[in-house]
Amino acid sequence: MPSTLITGIGTLVTNDPAHGTGPLGALTDAAVVIDGGTVAWVGPAAGAPAADEVFDAAGRALLPGWVDSHAHLVFAGDRTAEFNARMSGQSYSAGGIRTTVAATRAAADAELDANLARLVREALRQGTTLVECKSGYGLTVEDESRALRIASSYTPETTYLGAHVVAPEFADDPAGYVELVTGPMLDACAPYARWVDVFCEKGAFDGDQARAILTAGIERGLIPRVHANQLTYGPGVQLAVELGAASADHCTHLTDEDVAALAGSSTVATLLPGAEFSTRAVYPDARRLLEAGAVVALSTDCNPGSSFTSSMAFCIAVAVREMGMTPDEAVWAATAGGARALRRTDVGTVRVGARADLQLLDAPSPVHLAYRPGVPLTAAVWRAGVREV
Amino acid sequence: MPSTLITGIGTLVTNDPAHGTGPLGALTDAAVVIDGGTVAWVGPAAGAPAADEVFDAAGRALLPGWVDSHAHLVFAGDRTAEFNARMSGQSYSAGGIRTTVAATRAAADAELDANLARLVREALRQGTTLVECKSGYGLTVEDESRALRIASSYTPETTYLGAHVVAPEFADDPAGYVELVTGPMLDACAPYARWVDVFCEKGAFDGDQARAILTAGIERGLIPRVHANQLTYGPGVQLAVELGAASADHCTHLTDEDVAALAGSSTVATLLPGAEFSTRAVYPDARRLLEAGAVVALSTDCNPGSSFTSSMAFCIAVAVREMGMTPDEAVWAATAGGARALRRTDVGTVRVGARADLQLLDAPSPVHLAYRPGVPLTAAVWRAGVREV
Repeated sequence: MPSTLITGIGTLVTNDPAHGTGPLGALTDAAVVIDGGTVAWVGPAAGAPAADEVFDAAGRALLPGWVDSHAHLVFAGDRTAEFNARMSGQSYSAGGIRTTVAATRAAADAELDANLARLVREALRQGTTLVECKSGYGLTVEDESRALRIASSYTPETTYLGAHVVAPEFADDPAGYVELVTGPMLDACAPYARWVDVFCEKGAFDGDQARAILTAGIERGLIPRVHANQLTYGPGVQLAVELGAASADHCTHLTDEDVAALAGSSTVATLLPGAEFSTRAVYPDARRLLEAGAVVALSTDCNPGSSFTSSMAFCIAVAVREMGMTPDEAVWAATAGGARALRRTDVGTVRVGARADLQLLDAPSPVHLAYRPGVPLTAAVWRAGVREV
Repeated sequence: MPSTLITGIGTLVTNDPAHGTGPLGALTDAAVVIDGGTVAWVGPAAGAPAADEVFDAAGRALLPGWVDSHAHLVFAGDRTAEFNARMSGQSYSAGGIRTTVAATRAAADAELDANLARLVREALRQGTTLVECKSGYGLTVEDESRALRIASSYTPETTYLGAHVVAPEFADDPAGYVELVTGPMLDACAPYARWVDVFCEKGAFDGDQARAILTAGIERGLIPRVHANQLTYGPGVQLAVELGAASADHCTHLTDEDVAALAGSSTVATLLPGAEFSTRAVYPDARRLLEAGAVVALSTDCNPGSSFTSSMAFCIAVAVREMGMTPDEAVWAATAGGARALRRTDVGTVRVGARADLQLLDAPSPVHLAYRPGVPLTAAVWRAGVREV
């Protein structure tokens, strides 16, 4: 693979304080050299070394690719009518997650694969170079392991979420479902998963159930992450911190103790404004978390029920409008923050040795992601050094 | 120009009740024939006539192109730092509109033209096939007429907005500026303008000044439209209705009397959620206007100060989230509503004889515009029958 010099970069977001100013480690009039899939050089354009090929950024901004650390992309079925009814103030006998579970179970592997491929490609066209992907619409041993097997050919960041909701077959026996999730289903899924997750919420799994599920996953070598405190206050965040989870996701309803626990831990608070946008719910308070010293990530929560966006730029714009984040903080959260939430040190920054996951904006600065909401600004994308868009 | 049959349309939005169901006149499994720049046939795919060329929509949704009836696209200069400071909670000695006025006056014609061309193209790539364009960053006879002359080569919907704010040279003599706007500036601008507009607001022009400006424009053959009731309650909406304006724009702060006046008139209420999004202001209440029987349009207000989006899809998503519009109502407002606000009967609908301004979505239904916020869904665009995207 020939080396590439990207030069004429108006603003380079490195997320590396050693390289530039502010929280984004921003450099102006910068250049980057990509070689062999990784970043080989970063610095002022005037001092850049030669490379086999040259790409002129023409004053535009170059950023790390988005790291979307929370998405549910293995599914089938259509919930457009449910969304339309909700937003039109009409009642709708929606089965919620169960509608998608039924359609996903009924789908052939090829259908699930094609839908996932389409969404990963759609996200890549918008600058997302790494996306996490959860199971959770199968809820049987076979369907959960199938989802993770399919996902694992698209991303290494696969998450076992058998504990999304109690499977309909176990509606009267939630303890029996927890036994399945911590036993045979875990056995079948662990080979395809890096992470274990649980929806810790009223109507899903309580604190004791969540602890049992996460602990079983940890014992199988999976790393925990938790759907925590989305719809109401609850034990999810405290449990995530206690078990050393990489991330507590949603964090919409937090007590002062929850905020302090996150701030005093390495657990990232992953905020998902697409979910609040699409369900007309109250937004999480990013400012409060940042002031306390917690690490904040932004992700899409892309799923067909509550947040069917794949746009990290949209999440940034909403986080700035609604959640008290500055444009710089939001851009950091969608790149370096996502990497922290996935415990990845090779992505989310632009520094020598990092994976060459890069996106060029049709704009001179990353502020434009919030300043120009909804406008597709992705001009070019490299993933592991390969030009994809 | 060869005729084109677009077939396999999953959902066709006609905005013509004669053609289909609901407010959008929606047809499923539909086809459209384009011939000579206009729509030559609309109906079920099974009964479509032959054409020189065939385009397979493959089940996707086809809509009228967006009619963006409120935009400020002739400008120079950069206000990124002002936006960044506002959203970061920092003070910033911003000159607001005057910053852009100074930069616009200093710019060469070619710079203004290139910036306008870039924004019109950016909007077209997102499905906008007709965009209105105002002056208002010149505020001298020469600079206002120059702006309209440049704009008129991109759109027939040009609006004389010499009364955007009082020019800095007249800070101590607003009456003198109104004389200029209603006299020599109007003389110079009228040949390039279809519309006359005024920013009727505290800090800009009061009711009496606005009346004088609009009346002078009407006497020169221009049609009135008004920036009304954006920042606070005021006389703008009542004046717009009284003078038979095509549209009252913003309509954020309305009394019951304002709503009744709009509902009892042919003046369209044009709502601009990008402005409230980007300034963290309260949103207009579209539901209240719709329930009263007013006609509502949605537009971007694209401008570098308060709403730098060119995305009509983004405005739809926000209108549904925040302003009580159903997805169907928002799509109608962004197409047929915009056409009504510009008194155009040849755009905003898909019917025989209409201009063939069409957009294909990468989605089976127009609901996806709100269901998938931020995702670039534009798959193809025809303007006056010519495939542009």
